[in-house]
Amino acid sequence: MFDSMWTVKVVSLGVVGLSLSLELLFWLFSRRRSERVTNKVLFFPSKVACVEHIFSPTLPHSHVCSLPHGVDTSFSRLLRYILSACSSLDLCLFSFSNMDLSRAVLLLHSRGVTIRVLTDKVYSAISGSQIGVLRKAGICVRCDVSAVHMHHKFAVVDGRMLITGSLNWTLTAVQSNMENIIITEEPDLVQPFVKEFCRLWGLNDSAQDLNSVTD
Amino acid sequence: MFDSMWTVKVVSLGVVGLSLSLELLFWLFSRRRSERVTNKVLFFPSKVACVEHIFSPTLPHSHVCSLPHGVDTSFSRLLRYILSACSSLDLCLFSFSNMDLSRAVLLLHSRGVTIRVLTDKVYSAISGSQIGVLRKAGICVRCDVSAVHMHHKFAVVDGRMLITGSLNWTLTAVQSNMENIIITEEPDLVQPFVKEFCRLWGLNDSAQDLNSVTD
Repeated sequence: MFDSMWTVKVVSLGVVGLSLSLELLFWLFSRRRSERVTNKVLFFPSKVACVEHIFSPTLPHSHVCSLPHGVDTSFSRLLRYILSACSSLDLCLFSFSNMDLSRAVLLLHSRGVTIRVLTDKVYSAISGSQIGVLRKAGICVRCDVSAVHMHHKFAVVDGRMLITGSLNWTLTAVQSNMENIIITEEPDLVQPFVKEFCRLWGLNDSAQDLNSVTD
Repeated sequence: MFDSMWTVKVVSLGVVGLSLSLELLFWLFSRRRSERVTNKVLFFPSKVACVEHIFSPTLPHSHVCSLPHGVDTSFSRLLRYILSACSSLDLCLFSFSNMDLSRAVLLLHSRGVTIRVLTDKVYSAISGSQIGVLRKAGICVRCDVSAVHMHHKFAVVDGRMLITGSLNWTLTAVQSNMENIIITEEPDLVQPFVKEFCRLWGLNDSAQDLNSVTD
């Protein structure tokens, strides 16, 4: 009788322990998943600060530019999200004239990240546009050939992180205007943009990849 | 001995049953939560279709407009998300000239929904802007008084649903341009916009609420 009671207790405790461990694992898994999924919002105008340390972390950046250092700004965060690309960066941009953003894209290109840029035909040729610079560096650029505005301002990093909002990739948008971007890894939000990018990329003439463009 | 074995089995089964029920409840709860949270993306240009049935569900809409009927478009979905507002609608819009969107806002106003509109001063006065119409109807409108562009294009429905993207609230944006908007209830994405709206609303002169504006 005494042995049986012990058996009851041991078996019950074992089952309770197993059950609690499962609950804990499930909870940890859910928690890790929700921690993994980025959902951030950045507002602009951004404070103006030195971003040299983002491009060259080893350089003593105090020697490189006279702007305030070590300040975490909306723009420095945006740069970091873009520079986190390991394998691919798809850009679908109405206007692209910001030189620091262009430098980030060129840096990724030099690291071997596959970059595709889809842009508005009219805005790609305006003064200060970085589209020609990217193309000359060997980055694959296509211009939307339709008569309407290709007004998107989104980027997809490694096919899993979406950067989108009101912000054109210009200096005015970053430093002057009131603007927003969201950075998200929610598949329900990211995947439609991945699909739309592929659709628009396919719609435009692949022969463009070989063409030169006015800077 | 026989009784004790039964006790072991009954207690073990009870604990296993309880554990499984808890797992199931937890799973159902997580599933229902993720089903509740809206995460949608709409792309534009939208197909052009009749939207009368959205404004007046009881009307025989075939009599009202000659456009295709019963077509679910990006624009009809956007209208439905906006018209789902029960208590409040905060609009932060660079440009607002789309008459159907203006009609939706006026309809919500007539239903007693609290509406606040923050817009760009320059664009509020251009030909076709709906800002004057909204103000004349008694809707609270403030124009951003800074020298830069108030370039946001977002709406917050009932303080819980965010509508944001590249889309200005104009006819060209809806029917011609390539544009995107996301609709989300993710608190990490919605709350920063709620906060930013309050900040910008507070920054601009409340005396404006009483001023008239050029249509």
